[in-house]
Parts: sequence; structure tokens; C-alpha cells
Amino acid sequence: MALTLYGGPQTRASMPRWYLEEKGIPYELVEIDLRGNQHRQPDYLAINPFGKLPALVDDSLLGPDGQPLTLFESGAILLHLAEHHGKEIKGPAQRSLINQWLLFANATLAIALFVPSNREREFPRLMQELNHQLTPGQPLVGEQWGAADCAVTAYLAYLPIFFPQEDLSPYPAIEALIASTQQRPAYRKVMGMN
Amino acid sequence: MALTLYGGPQTRASMPRWYLEEKGIPYELVEIDLRGNQHRQPDYLAINPFGKLPALVDDSLLGPDGQPLTLFESGAILLHLAEHHGKEIKGPAQRSLINQWLLFANATLAIALFVPSNREREFPRLMQELNHQLTPGQPLVGEQWGAADCAVTAYLAYLPIFFPQEDLSPYPAIEALIASTQQRPAYRKVMGMN
Repeated sequence: MALTLYGGPQTRASMPRWYLEEKGIPYELVEIDLRGNQHRQPDYLAINPFGKLPALVDDSLLGPDGQPLTLFESGAILLHLAEHHGKEIKGPAQRSLINQWLLFANATLAIALFVPSNREREFPRLMQELNHQLTPGQPLVGEQWGAADCAVTAYLAYLPIFFPQEDLSPYPAIEALIASTQQRPAYRKVMGMN
Repeated sequence: MALTLYGGPQTRASMPRWYLEEKGIPYELVEIDLRGNQHRQPDYLAINPFGKLPALVDDSLLGPDGQPLTLFESGAILLHLAEHHGKEIKGPAQRSLINQWLLFANATLAIALFVPSNREREFPRLMQELNHQLTPGQPLVGEQWGAADCAVTAYLAYLPIFFPQEDLSPYPAIEALIASTQQRPAYRKVMGMN
């Protein structure tokens, strides 16, 4: 069994990579040089035809072409890892709820944070409710830190990096989550904070 | 077994509703009055605490609180329907690939289409490759029209509505897909085109 993650610093590959590190799942990291335009070369386009990062090749499963399964989209990679390598999914409701948070992170939260017009309109309400949903030290789904936490926290932890002027004190659970995340060895490793 | 979809016209509820109609899955539609602010009232916030549409209640499964499972995020609702009601998922690779396209639609494609700065930068490349990936009459994953097609096509079919000036002739497979979609009875019903 071999997992290959195609990524690069400052790409969404950090998210599945953080999950792999937290769960102690063996993987090979192939760094794709965005500045050198390596993501637009035929070798990489054969893996992800859209030329985006991350992508995952999992040779423990076969894709429709009979070759090792290749996936793109960080959220889909996370669900796949949770399903097959993280021993996280204990039943059908849990799978659906994990996927709910992956989509929330990659679609709703990403747009609310990084699209300026949406940020003004949606940000405070979303943050307020997310602050309610988060209980420090408790996972979003199930009994252990997992893919849902990984996706939601990865976006929240970008806040102090991209918007250092943003006052997060109205959201104490989110502040606490960001602070504890910045202490996690796996997160520090993946984010190059060591 | 009962499925309740909370939606309203011109919300992302159209996407899972189209899937339910195409697959002939029985469901109850509860329309939430956005103008009357019904999505911010306690009754609806008990279903989706973020106050967004759509949401799904599936009483064939129990959530962690022992109550019927409640889900938000249109992409997560689609994967759940594909998994449990659409008889679509024939194996683990197929599940991961369907989810890949759901995330592609709701995250990457949605941002490329509707966020102006991204639309200029990403739109042509994304559309070009999507045009390659689509084969008229063939589903994106598996043997039959499914959740992946529903999500990707739902976004593409917004193009002539929101951007009627956009020339789609460089993307003939996408043009053909939009045209054939506009003829599907289930799509016409959900979009109020009859």
C-alpha cells in the first residue's frame, strides 16, 4: 500500500498532509514547483488534468481505468483518507457528517473568509455560529480528532496569517482552537513552523 | 423512511432536489421563505444552525444526538443521497470519485464562476479542461447519470442565466450538456421552467 500526495508549500495540500501526519499514515510527498510551472506540465496533468494541487494517488484501490486511484480536491482527498486509512468512519451517519464539514470548510467557509464581498456580509454570522459549534478539546464528529476538524481548523488557522488585524476576541472558542492548533507538532511540521 | 428537504426557489436546494427528482426518490419539500427571514428563525436554526439552505433530514438514520440525521451543505446532501437512496455507489473508488466532483463543483467551480477576480483568472482554463472531461451522453462517474453529473451540471447550467453574454462556443461539450440539461423534465420542474 502506498499513498503519494502531490503538493507544495502554501497550497491546499497542507490540509491532507496535516491529516496524514496527525494520524501517522505513511505517505510520500511529491513537491510540485508552482513557480517553475511544473503543475502545467504533462507529467502532472496526467495526475490532475486541472493542474491544481493537491492530488493523491492511492495504489491500494483501482480507478475506473484499472490504474491506481487518483483523486483531486483537498476535501475529497480528506474523506478518502478518513474512509480508508484513518480508521475514522464508524457508520453511515458519521461519514455523512464528516463530509458535511469538509464541504462547509472548502465551499462555505473558504468563500466567507477569502472573498471580500462575502467576508463583509457573511463572516460575522458564520464565525459566531462556528464559535457555538466548537467545544475546545472536542472533535466536530465522533470521539477523536479527525478529517472534519482538520478541514475546518485549517481554514480558521489561516485567519491570523491573512488577516492579522481581525479581532477574534468575540469568538473565544475559535481563538482557543487556533492557539492550540499552532502548538500541534504535526501542524507545525506541515506549516514549516519548526 | 422519509426524506425532508428544506429549500426555496433560487437556492442551492435545487441541486439535491434535481437529484431526487431524476432518481424518483420520494421526498417532502419544505419551502423556507428567505424574504420573510424564515431561515433565521429558531425552528429552522434547529435544523441548520448556520441558517443556510438546503438542509436534509433523513429519518432512516440516526445522528449522534439519537434524532433523525440532519445534514447541511448541498454537496454533502448529494453524497448522502447517492450513498443511501440513489443506489449509485458500487465501490470505494466510485464513492471517492463522486465526492471529488461534488467538491470540485461546490468549491472550485463555484468560485471560478461566481467570484469575479477568479473568473477572469481561472475560468478559461477550467472550462477548457472541463470541456475535455465531459463526453456528451456519458456520466462523469460510473454507468449512469448521478450525483457528480448533478453537481457539475447544475453550476454549468447557471452560466447562460447569470452570464448570458459569455461565449460558450469554445466549449462545445459544455454547450451540448447545458442544452440537453434544459430539456430534462426533472430539471425543468425543479427550475420552474414548465
